[in-house]
Amino acid sequence: MREILVIGLGAGDPEYVTVQAVNALNATDVFFVVDKGEEKSGLLALRQEICDRYITGDDYRMVTIPEPPRDRAAEAYTGAVDDWHVRRAELFEAAILEHLPENGRGAFLVWGDPALYDSTLRVIDHILARGAVQFTHRVIPGITSVQALAAQHRLPLNRIGEPVHITTGRRLAAGLPEGLESAVVMLDPNLACAALDDPDLHLYWGAYLGTPDEVLRSGPLLEIVEEVVALKQELRRRHGWIMDTYLVRREQTVSRAGSQG
Amino acid sequence: MREILVIGLGAGDPEYVTVQAVNALNATDVFFVVDKGEEKSGLLALRQEICDRYITGDDYRMVTIPEPPRDRAAEAYTGAVDDWHVRRAELFEAAILEHLPENGRGAFLVWGDPALYDSTLRVIDHILARGAVQFTHRVIPGITSVQALAAQHRLPLNRIGEPVHITTGRRLAAGLPEGLESAVVMLDPNLACAALDDPDLHLYWGAYLGTPDEVLRSGPLLEIVEEVVALKQELRRRHGWIMDTYLVRREQTVSRAGSQG
Ligand SMILES: C[S@@+](CC[C@H](N)C(=O)[O-])C[C@H]1O[C@@H](n2cnc3c(N)ncnc32)[C@H](O)[C@@H]1O
Ligand SMILES: C[S@@+](CC[C@H](N)C(=O)[O-])C[C@H]1O[C@@H](n2cnc3c(N)ncnc32)[C@H](O)[C@@H]1O
Repeated sequence: MREILVIGLGAGDPEYVTVQAVNALNATDVFFVVDKGEEKSGLLALRQEICDRYITGDDYRMVTIPEPPRDRAAEAYTGAVDDWHVRRAELFEAAILEHLPENGRGAFLVWGDPALYDSTLRVIDHILARGAVQFTHRVIPGITSVQALAAQHRLPLNRIGEPVHITTGRRLAAGLPEGLESAVVMLDPNLACAALDDPDLHLYWGAYLGTPDEVLRSGPLLEIVEEVVALKQELRRRHGWIMDTYLVRREQTVSRAGSQG
Repeated sequence: MREILVIGLGAGDPEYVTVQAVNALNATDVFFVVDKGEEKSGLLALRQEICDRYITGDDYRMVTIPEPPRDRAAEAYTGAVDDWHVRRAELFEAAILEHLPENGRGAFLVWGDPALYDSTLRVIDHILARGAVQFTHRVIPGITSVQALAAQHRLPLNRIGEPVHITTGRRLAAGLPEGLESAVVMLDPNLACAALDDPDLHLYWGAYLGTPDEVLRSGPLLEIVEEVVALKQELRRRHGWIMDTYLVRREQTVSRAGSQG
């Protein structure tokens, strides 16, 4: 029986890699690498650095799978995301059938953790539902960009007894969800928090977290957000790409903090 | 200048430990270990296993800090949690002053990730605010129980374009928050999900995640929740302690899934 590993590599620092991931990397015969045109981003180099650093033998192969084109305009309204997963499943399936021997172990390498805003597990479910190739699969968790953000700002993600809410820029644009005092925001090209107009909000922002290019900013949202917007534009120009994540939350006095249970 | 590391050890499997944590463990002179009366739980043995496995030298010391008593009845209504943090800060401060040399590196070991439902970072902020001892501090993220749950069930935490919401049993008792289709629940001794009466909800439950005692259950909430409640009681009796986490979410058809953007 074939086995497929979905390996979370952590989000930035090669030292975020877990012992479980190192062992999984070394137990893999064939790596399936999706070509997302990441040459321009730093991600490809980081992935390479992780492989070079932790894989001890050279008895493995790398197979590149092309990325199907996405219709981003359609995605917001229709089943386009799902169609795209199906097209991706076809390409993954063909690559597995062609390159992974019957008892081989293949792996997909995922940035951060495979459970957080990543399509690999959904694509694998589509492949299994199609039924043309059988395999078992295992997931190896990895440090997420959310955890990198919290660690670098030395922040708890939750206030005492309160929830942790992780969302997208698109959703934050409508404001902090009713009843919530904080949110972590990912996938936000345009810093949706700049539209929030609440003087109690604090911003904790991080770009290229865990990498040598890391930049952190924090402070009252209304005081610093313009500077962060400008900084983000400048960083994107300088590096040719950017990945950033942030937490916004209402700050409270110590005495109020004590009453949250 | 003293340095304090707050090291996330991951939540269960010793292989969840990151390379960064291994390096941090080996760079530590004095470990400050809070005695939470965990002898009865398996956590103490797991922490010991991690230290034995990854610390290569023996040029370190372990200092045990007693846990101040908690008034759990008062916590829900008053500043008792906060008072407790202050009392804890006093004990930590005394231990650092007594046992950590001026240029020494101390560490607190945290289960899972220090940013998620853990008091260590808050206590450190209290110590720094008191001003009696100075130090720099760094946070080393660790794999959380939420990630262990997702990995073992091979589940994405978010549905496409939707948020990830992590909350406590106490809060879930009021139902899934307005507008949310799923929630991860921690700190829930009594399985608050048993009170939810929605036939579309699915439960993905895990206890002792990542350990040899791991137990997983999943299925339609209304069909399996009674069995899980009974199982949890039995496991708690058998092991003398239990740690469990779960995800509840409304399941949707593939065609609806496609329209979430
Ligand atoms: C497609 S999601 C993948 C998330 C990933 N699976 C994880 O666990 O972090 C990409 C988003 O993650 C965030 N991100 C990933 N790596 C990051 C980093 N090193 N620094 C800042 N943000 C990062 C950004 O918000 C980006 O838009
Ligand atoms: C005080 S919180 C600490 C969470 C930890 N910092 C983390 O990152 O997972 C304790 C809660 O975490 C969850 N938990 C921790 N370890 C677990 C494990 N191995 N299996 C299942 N749940 C776990 C349980 O919900 C428990 O009530």
